[in-house]
Amino acid sequence: MSKDFDVEFKKDLMRKADIVTTALGTIMQEQSEIQPLLSEAMKYTLLSGGKRIRGAIVLWICQMLKGKITHEAKTAAAAIEMVHTYSLVHDDLPAMDNDDLRRGKPTLHKKYDEATAILAGDGLLTLAFEMLATEIPDSNLAIKLVGVLATVAGPSGMVAGQMADILAEKQPANIESLEYIHQNKTAMMFSGAATLGALCGDAKRKQLHNLANYGLKLGLCFQIADDILDVCSTSEEMGKTVGKDQAQDKTTYPSLLGLEKSKEIAEKLTNEALDTLSSFDEKADTLRYLATEMLNRKN
Amino acid sequence: MSKDFDVEFKKDLMRKADIVTTALGTIMQEQSEIQPLLSEAMKYTLLSGGKRIRGAIVLWICQMLKGKITHEAKTAAAAIEMVHTYSLVHDDLPAMDNDDLRRGKPTLHKKYDEATAILAGDGLLTLAFEMLATEIPDSNLAIKLVGVLATVAGPSGMVAGQMADILAEKQPANIESLEYIHQNKTAMMFSGAATLGALCGDAKRKQLHNLANYGLKLGLCFQIADDILDVCSTSEEMGKTVGKDQAQDKTTYPSLLGLEKSKEIAEKLTNEALDTLSSFDEKADTLRYLATEMLNRKN
Repeated sequence: MSKDFDVEFKKDLMRKADIVTTALGTIMQEQSEIQPLLSEAMKYTLLSGGKRIRGAIVLWICQMLKGKITHEAKTAAAAIEMVHTYSLVHDDLPAMDNDDLRRGKPTLHKKYDEATAILAGDGLLTLAFEMLATEIPDSNLAIKLVGVLATVAGPSGMVAGQMADILAEKQPANIESLEYIHQNKTAMMFSGAATLGALCGDAKRKQLHNLANYGLKLGLCFQIADDILDVCSTSEEMGKTVGKDQAQDKTTYPSLLGLEKSKEIAEKLTNEALDTLSSFDEKADTLRYLATEMLNRKN
Repeated sequence: MSKDFDVEFKKDLMRKADIVTTALGTIMQEQSEIQPLLSEAMKYTLLSGGKRIRGAIVLWICQMLKGKITHEAKTAAAAIEMVHTYSLVHDDLPAMDNDDLRRGKPTLHKKYDEATAILAGDGLLTLAFEMLATEIPDSNLAIKLVGVLATVAGPSGMVAGQMADILAEKQPANIESLEYIHQNKTAMMFSGAATLGALCGDAKRKQLHNLANYGLKLGLCFQIADDILDVCSTSEEMGKTVGKDQAQDKTTYPSLLGLEKSKEIAEKLTNEALDTLSSFDEKADTLRYLATEMLNRKN
């Protein structure tokens, strides 16, 4: 890809992130019944940056298929970012990953306290479903979005991955359990984001299948890149604690297979992600670029 | 009400609780993709008894309006009990109420650990929405159920009440903040249960309004009775730690207004609950009896 495309892609990602953040800000502003401290805590973590990649995927795919970004897509993008944010808040808790730094700021339980962090996480998760149910006029579409988001985020998806991740800290993981963790903890949510976008874009069955697969491969690649960055990056670049995996003796792709082999696997996944897009025309170039960008990202 | 009705009511409540527990068991059995330890922890807390009052309200109201208990009503009853159970699991955590005993057994974080309890709670909450989205064929009904459940359970409902409850522990609450806590932490979920049942029973608009109000009054009465039981009951009867409110210097109706005045308010709420049912015939007698039973309950 040309350097111009690279510049354009980065601008587009920022525009999409802005759309998602604006949608989240509007939602929080309109939810006047939220208990004040809870609202403050939710906004602290929800509106404090973040790459919004999952939300951007929803928007890109809807735009690709429908030629525009609909209110439904914005709502779905906001919903998946709420779910992603809740997962970070709970994951950072002392009983979980025990992290002090997130998105360049103190984690929620450090800024407030543990009880507030638990409840703010619960609130974000529940609000995501409330928004899908109340903001999307077409019931058929709305209930499909709820089903997809709940499935990828729930105990057969992201929460399963988090549970396996916690267990892996207690005993050395092998490559199979590592794949299980990446698949569930990370890739399911990327696949969910792609599916939400596809549903908002009225995708045909075959397109839906391909795009869900695209998200899955992209998510696997993203997580390996994350593990590599934990070894190679700085806290300043990442906005969260790095070097933690090694300090905690945590099994990762780099620790299990080495950096070179990990990069090879990530490249293979990038190619598989590109393959899922073979039936799409140049409108999918942004998605293609996103797949290749996974390995180049610095944070 | 006659003694015969009392016996019949208690049998009926047990039948309804069995239906709910069976539905929950089936759901957990069919969810084969849940991470094994997570599944075990979710079942430990979900299938370990509990009165299932919220689920029973869903079933009673559907039965009253439609003459039968539908698959939709069973699913909605299971969903609200999953949400109620998740709220107990998170509420029992050390950073929240720090409780060791629940439903006569060690709390989830005591039996397993805090991380497992946080994730099992997250899993139950998310699974509730997954079930509503995937088990109910009529999209219009399904999305209404999701909207109601998310609204009453979320940061403008139950989670708001929990947040206010935590804050009230740090500073003495007055009657207004106590009403806010009861309304949000408890009564919204009862109102939600009644509304889910009404929706499953194809209630007309006026019926829906009255039944939602019935649930609200019932829930307020239930919570005051709970506070009274915390003073007057034993741990054995309640299956959870009692006398905690007083030990923690927690402001409750009894501590703020005394036992007699608290009972008076509960009686007033019972009468208000009965008033909301004035347009229903004798088919609502079970709901009427339930309202009068709130004050007589021993656990």
